[in-house]
Amino acid sequence: MKVTVWNEFRHEVEPGHESGKVYPEGIHKVIAGFLAEAGFDVKTATLDEPEHGLTDEVLADTDVLIWWGHMAHHEVSDEIVQKVFDRVMFGGMGFIALHSGHFSKPFGKLMGTGCNLKWNEYGESERVWVINPAHPITKGLPEYFDVPKTEMYGERFDIPQPDDLVFISWYPSGEVFRSGCCWSRGKGKVFYFSPGHETYPIYKQKEIQQVIINAVNWAAPTGTEVTYGRWFDRFDKK
Amino acid sequence: MKVTVWNEFRHEVEPGHESGKVYPEGIHKVIAGFLAEAGFDVKTATLDEPEHGLTDEVLADTDVLIWWGHMAHHEVSDEIVQKVFDRVMFGGMGFIALHSGHFSKPFGKLMGTGCNLKWNEYGESERVWVINPAHPITKGLPEYFDVPKTEMYGERFDIPQPDDLVFISWYPSGEVFRSGCCWSRGKGKVFYFSPGHETYPIYKQKEIQQVIINAVNWAAPTGTEVTYGRWFDRFDKK
Amino acid sequence: MKVTVWNEFRHEVEPGHESGKVYPEGIHKVIAGFLAEAGFDVKTATLDEPEHGLTDEVLADTDVLIWWGHMAHHEVSDEIVQKVFDRVMFGGMGFIALHSGHFSKPFGKLMGTGCNLKWNEYGESERVWVINPAHPITKGLPEYFDVPKTEMYGERFDIPQPDDLVFISWYPSGEVFRSGCCWSRGKGKVFYFSPGHETYPIYKQKEIQQVIINAVNWAAPTGTEVTYGRWFDRFDKK
Amino acid sequence: MKVTVWNEFRHEVEPGHESGKVYPEGIHKVIAGFLAEAGFDVKTATLDEPEHGLTDEVLADTDVLIWWGHMAHHEVSDEIVQKVFDRVMFGGMGFIALHSGHFSKPFGKLMGTGCNLKWNEYGESERVWVINPAHPITKGLPEYFDVPKTEMYGERFDIPQPDDLVFISWYPSGEVFRSGCCWSRGKGKVFYFSPGHETYPIYKQKEIQQVIINAVNWAAPTGTEVTYGRWFDRFDKK
Repeated sequence: MKVTVWNEFRHEVEPGHESGKVYPEGIHKVIAGFLAEAGFDVKTATLDEPEHGLTDEVLADTDVLIWWGHMAHHEVSDEIVQKVFDRVMFGGMGFIALHSGHFSKPFGKLMGTGCNLKWNEYGESERVWVINPAHPITKGLPEYFDVPKTEMYGERFDIPQPDDLVFISWYPSGEVFRSGCCWSRGKGKVFYFSPGHETYPIYKQKEIQQVIINAVNWAAPTGTEVTYGRWFDRFDKK
Repeated sequence: MKVTVWNEFRHEVEPGHESGKVYPEGIHKVIAGFLAEAGFDVKTATLDEPEHGLTDEVLADTDVLIWWGHMAHHEVSDEIVQKVFDRVMFGGMGFIALHSGHFSKPFGKLMGTGCNLKWNEYGESERVWVINPAHPITKGLPEYFDVPKTEMYGERFDIPQPDDLVFISWYPSGEVFRSGCCWSRGKGKVFYFSPGHETYPIYKQKEIQQVIINAVNWAAPTGTEVTYGRWFDRFDKK
Repeated sequence: MKVTVWNEFRHEVEPGHESGKVYPEGIHKVIAGFLAEAGFDVKTATLDEPEHGLTDEVLADTDVLIWWGHMAHHEVSDEIVQKVFDRVMFGGMGFIALHSGHFSKPFGKLMGTGCNLKWNEYGESERVWVINPAHPITKGLPEYFDVPKTEMYGERFDIPQPDDLVFISWYPSGEVFRSGCCWSRGKGKVFYFSPGHETYPIYKQKEIQQVIINAVNWAAPTGTEVTYGRWFDRFDKK
Repeated sequence: MKVTVWNEFRHEVEPGHESGKVYPEGIHKVIAGFLAEAGFDVKTATLDEPEHGLTDEVLADTDVLIWWGHMAHHEVSDEIVQKVFDRVMFGGMGFIALHSGHFSKPFGKLMGTGCNLKWNEYGESERVWVINPAHPITKGLPEYFDVPKTEMYGERFDIPQPDDLVFISWYPSGEVFRSGCCWSRGKGKVFYFSPGHETYPIYKQKEIQQVIINAVNWAAPTGTEVTYGRWFDRFDKK
């Protein structure tokens, strides 16, 4: 299973930004690290590489693409977004959007909705509840776990109703959030997972890593082919 | 539109029970009251009436049945449960289970799951969030509303994944709950709505009444007929 | 309830085109006709009107927009598509895409998928089966009905899994199709209904008219408001 | 992964019954055979064994239970049905109901609906279409495949709306059927797959075997624990 971890990689290199202290080598390196340990074949790609690191070769060689972006969504070229979209829809690549990736171009295009939400940054905690214990993305998890410090993401989250709702998060300040959601799109599968603010070491937390590992396994391409267009039926074929 | 409000009507008549103070004539009377004001043709029925008040005539004359029960679920006869089930499945009657009705026999039979949950009674507040503003059950509601004092119902709620998830509730003590859920069952529609503890005047709250009024409208029978069994197809029919 | 029927209105005015014989005044006039008879307040709009007939005033005054297009999807301006999208997502306008409208820009944008399918034109019949008799869009319908002559639309239909699957169609040549599908998108509701080829009098068929009338009722805006963005919670508000 | 294949095993041993010619050792032996070849650890169990072969030990040692029954559903004891139900709901065992298993007691109990359908036996063919190519149960399949001779099962199929609709079948006589459907129930997953009449060698067909192998993999337990009942929250715990 070949995973590419994409990161916009801007906050971490901003002089003095908190996220550089938490993720000195970038969020992608931490995510790639625990995925490699879990046995996946992992690459990384970042915004400022040529073609954002997502060349045709890289995309063709990716089973599951993980996306972290926040401050520079608008700098991602529409051409690359279209290629990512096509690779999910027609190639079956899994797509996992993390945290502020709710507002990334490829996620929005795959959803067909505004993907907006409520947010605030209090450094409060978040409690992530398992809603569907039968779902493979919950494997190895307790029935809930706490993220000690997080950015609050609250409903209404402007997404299509998920095919499977896996997690709902609770915040002390009065909000709830559908924090783990699954959809199929064309030949591919999409998972959104909200915890992961850049200024807290959330991707170093064991349960968070477990969710992402499970999600990669779940999002594996099936390879099932479908065709579209003019169809010559059984009678024509005779 | 003909609505029957069923109540087990036991807590309210227990000497000294708090719920008798809140609902001296019974929860069903309060619910029937605001539904009648909203223009529905409303009847009530209670556990200790003959056939629990749900005779064949009453059921045949009911478009939507509302169910409140708590301490005496086991006293509801299986024969009546089967009749309610059949009327939903094959007659298209809407069924609305309220609060502790999650553990009622007809709701459990319609769901096919255990319908268990977490609970506690702190007299804490509950914040009910609208998750799907496009759903008719949200008509006239703000994006969230608070129930000042409630019994806590928390996930994991052991229900089938809803066809539509309308509300999620938040509690200060750290829990979340899918508090408004829709399913179709056979020719009928089922709605579960969790707020409504017997010792708090929750059914006197305007937003709660609005939800139940909307749910009755949503749960109206369609009258669409389907047939089952041996099927003689187009070729036989010639 | 205010309905706007949009039609690209090109086939019907092509000299000698079959559809001009079937719909001499345009498909939109026939659809507007039976909707007006059903009591709706109906307008029409067509591609070659200024702003495609969908000015800000018209959109703001539309509760449900019905869309028929086929040969000129690419001529619909992206600006108008964005306005239609926004009016569904943020204004709650219902959107009903008919037949070849599966490939229209607003439907594709709302779905987030390719919306492709198999097709062929044999002039074969189509049998439309009710899959969910509890759904209000089936009101007044038999459990199946036949369209005598139709264009075949076959699976795999490249849409997101519907929130509600209402109809599946059967064709003699060996195909099936999810011909009636519901989704919510933002504050709005979307229905896709596949029968309706321009060269057959399908919109003059009683059952087809019933489906569209029901769909308009189902797609009514709720008016429920939600807000997005920075959120000052209960503690801030004190 | 431990699979138990349950078969009522009555048709095959009826003197002169066609199914004895097709499956001389029983349907379960054929299914167990290709599953063992696929690398699963497979047991079988039949109606006339003590406790129908489903002792506590067998159930506790089963990850996925496959169920084939037809003429003797009513002979399955309610006690065993309850144990199967509990093992799915609270133990996470996968449950795969095949063909006429739509009317089996455990499937009906897990669904909460009537599970009725239309049927006829013409010895016609069936075309099974992949509806969701992203779903792991479609792995290795063509976009459709034909079953040369089958019993017709037609809509409306009286099931809860599936969480995932994987296959729809087409029949020459004019019917369609949701032939591959997924649900989660408690900690377990349920799959229904309709092809498999006892008088045709359907379980010897390569594509059918592939579907069942895929379904077993999909239905694997997660092991995720959830608790129910009185809940002492964060404040109590201090």
